[in-house]
Amino acid sequence: MSRETGLLDEMFEKHRAEILDNYFQFLRFESISSEQQYSTQVESCAMWLSSYLKSSGFEVEYWKTSGHPTIFAHWLHAGADRPTVLIYNHYDVQPVDPVELWESPPFDPTLRDNQIFARGAQDNKGQCFYVLSALKYLLKEYGSLPVNIKLCIEGEEECGSAGLAGLLKEKQQELKAEYLFIVDVGLREPNLPAVTLGLRGIVTMTALFVGSNTDLHSGSHGGVACNPNHALVEVLAKLHDSEGQVLVPGFYDKVAALDKRAIAKINTSFDPSSYEQLFGAKPFGGEKKYSPLESAWLRPTLEINGVGGGYTGDGFKTVIPAHAVAKLSSRLVPHQEPAEIAELIAVYIKQITPRGIHVEVSINSGGGKGVRTDPDSRVVKAVAQAYSEVFEKPCDFILEGASIPIVPELSTAAGAEVVLMGYGLSTDKIHAPNEHFGLDRFQKGFVTIGRALQILGSSSN
Amino acid sequence: MSRETGLLDEMFEKHRAEILDNYFQFLRFESISSEQQYSTQVESCAMWLSSYLKSSGFEVEYWKTSGHPTIFAHWLHAGADRPTVLIYNHYDVQPVDPVELWESPPFDPTLRDNQIFARGAQDNKGQCFYVLSALKYLLKEYGSLPVNIKLCIEGEEECGSAGLAGLLKEKQQELKAEYLFIVDVGLREPNLPAVTLGLRGIVTMTALFVGSNTDLHSGSHGGVACNPNHALVEVLAKLHDSEGQVLVPGFYDKVAALDKRAIAKINTSFDPSSYEQLFGAKPFGGEKKYSPLESAWLRPTLEINGVGGGYTGDGFKTVIPAHAVAKLSSRLVPHQEPAEIAELIAVYIKQITPRGIHVEVSINSGGGKGVRTDPDSRVVKAVAQAYSEVFEKPCDFILEGASIPIVPELSTAAGAEVVLMGYGLSTDKIHAPNEHFGLDRFQKGFVTIGRALQILGSSSN
Repeated sequence: MSRETGLLDEMFEKHRAEILDNYFQFLRFESISSEQQYSTQVESCAMWLSSYLKSSGFEVEYWKTSGHPTIFAHWLHAGADRPTVLIYNHYDVQPVDPVELWESPPFDPTLRDNQIFARGAQDNKGQCFYVLSALKYLLKEYGSLPVNIKLCIEGEEECGSAGLAGLLKEKQQELKAEYLFIVDVGLREPNLPAVTLGLRGIVTMTALFVGSNTDLHSGSHGGVACNPNHALVEVLAKLHDSEGQVLVPGFYDKVAALDKRAIAKINTSFDPSSYEQLFGAKPFGGEKKYSPLESAWLRPTLEINGVGGGYTGDGFKTVIPAHAVAKLSSRLVPHQEPAEIAELIAVYIKQITPRGIHVEVSINSGGGKGVRTDPDSRVVKAVAQAYSEVFEKPCDFILEGASIPIVPELSTAAGAEVVLMGYGLSTDKIHAPNEHFGLDRFQKGFVTIGRALQILGSSSN
Repeated sequence: MSRETGLLDEMFEKHRAEILDNYFQFLRFESISSEQQYSTQVESCAMWLSSYLKSSGFEVEYWKTSGHPTIFAHWLHAGADRPTVLIYNHYDVQPVDPVELWESPPFDPTLRDNQIFARGAQDNKGQCFYVLSALKYLLKEYGSLPVNIKLCIEGEEECGSAGLAGLLKEKQQELKAEYLFIVDVGLREPNLPAVTLGLRGIVTMTALFVGSNTDLHSGSHGGVACNPNHALVEVLAKLHDSEGQVLVPGFYDKVAALDKRAIAKINTSFDPSSYEQLFGAKPFGGEKKYSPLESAWLRPTLEINGVGGGYTGDGFKTVIPAHAVAKLSSRLVPHQEPAEIAELIAVYIKQITPRGIHVEVSINSGGGKGVRTDPDSRVVKAVAQAYSEVFEKPCDFILEGASIPIVPELSTAAGAEVVLMGYGLSTDKIHAPNEHFGLDRFQKGFVTIGRALQILGSSSN
């Protein structure tokens, strides 16, 4: 470690017990944003966060939204010559089903093998809390922060961010900043520091295939009635060709050709056997003409996230169902507009649905565009330097196939240059039972964010 | 009506109150065979049936099976010059879910608009009970029956008939009969008398498509991981060509060409608009080169009864599921062997499953071959004559696309010529909420079975 990161590391060690105690308090709130019955817990979590930030030395605003509140906080005493950094996190979490697969209760944080097990331990309470801890103890130890700080911690990231999105115009002035830190991504390997240079966008939709007004007996009606399950498989099989390419007309129109030179800085090396070992899955899912990570990072997808029709339980039911449903999502790359792509898909599905079956396609709200950041920007360089100092090796540049739909809108509202950072790993089981986060990575996160802010503060002098 | 059917009709009217009282008692048993928690009710129903038949004048045997009991009863005092008729029914019923859609409780039989509403009101307690009532009051009024009677009333028709099937060899002697009545089918129109000349066979199977060892995030893994939903739709879309023909190699090998002369007696007329009005479904589901009823009655099908994979609930979950499942059934015509056809389908599915996905196909037990009866046989003629007398018009000949898998085995064991009769209608909502049976049809059933037995008894003199 560098001298500066060493000092930050000592700071963590000194306050370790208190940091973990507060982190665990944060994790105990059942702040599941997508399920109505948890709304009181979501609100309690927001209130707790608000108090915690006040006691850390921040001015706090409790932003009511159309849904769950956003906590906005700021400390703006670094001086006008220092940049203002807006940091984005979220305090809401995913549902915990199937809860019986958890080895310890999801809202009773448990330390095993130096990993914290809890819903949100990583996504995003863990990543949020090393940020808040670094800010609190920097302020406590030094009496000031190296840059002006604004915090935007929302409560609806896991269910579409509609509330925060609806406030962005009104709160544009409050959100103004030079840099926007999104601390909700990760590394490819525990010992390989990396700044993420982009996210894919997303749009989701539901297609309902309707045959009859009631379930029909497949004996009496088989060979007469149109089966919505047959229409579903026929239509969905035509979404891709045998090379894995999406067949929806116009789908790739705005996708830029893969410029190998432009992505030369990005590490797309990939080990198929380690992937298979980790996930039990062959990495053959993408377009055959691209490597797995080119496909996951730089190309759009059209994925069938759910199919359901008729009876699939134990035993058998000889039914021709009245309807069948498919849930589809498309991951987008820059220049692809969510609404435009969704419309292309909907039109195509309607065109190829066989006669006798009526199809309804509904496009969900909450989509967002892809994000791509500049590896040569000052903020990306600062974060890369901080990572390098922590790991004592050069920092990689990677991309992320997932989406944080609020990012493009938030960075536009704030007028800020984005950097994507974090300490997640693909094995953290976020959104799944037994989510966990390494305590070592939590500590590295504390040091990295602290050091990145110091670099940004000092280089502006 | 003829003089004889008029007398039988008077007999029904005379005992109407008692018949309905007993029918309603029979309907109150929750004899759902497929769900373990109802096994006591299934057994109580069998015991009640046993007592009822004893009090009607039958010798009764309570056959224990590997599953639910079969009630076997006989009255063999018509004389050696009279034929022996074996009548098959079942006292078990389908589950009642979704129970909230019933307008009156499924096991509290209710008479509305001259229809009896209850689970089993038609299938098969209603059809069984007009048979038992006719036998009881013929015996009571005349002191004897026109033919020797054996009754085989099983308790597992709705879940595969494994118990009775396992007894057939051992009970071959007891079951011996000249004729086998299967009273579990119906008419096409309420006022169009019809004898059913055949059933399709059936075999069912489950295909499980496995991708990874855990659900994966479709952002991070989309474009890398193979999606089992994609494999499912790709494979299942290749089960049929655009003309509706099954693409499984060998599937049609043993299917005889449609001989229009051989089916000249069968009424395959079909009104698409009335079908659409009844079911809200277009009748475009079969092979395009056959008419709807040729397709439903004389051609095999391969139907997708269920598809399930990933998330299809409210909202959205951006998941690449670990696995996806499909439930398939094939309706068979004579000469197609269930096990052989299932194997062809399983092999084909394995062959066309794309790389990266593992597929497991499991073939369910409980299948059975198709049935075809001779329109010129003595028993079919007797039943057709009885129908004609009741309706005072010529009797139609039809087929049925559904299956009663035990029939071929039972007729072989009994050495009996089969006739398929009944008073069901496609609008009775059997297997669905608000199952019902017309009291007028129940009464006609009573008269028809009584008259058919009289004809068989007298023509043997």
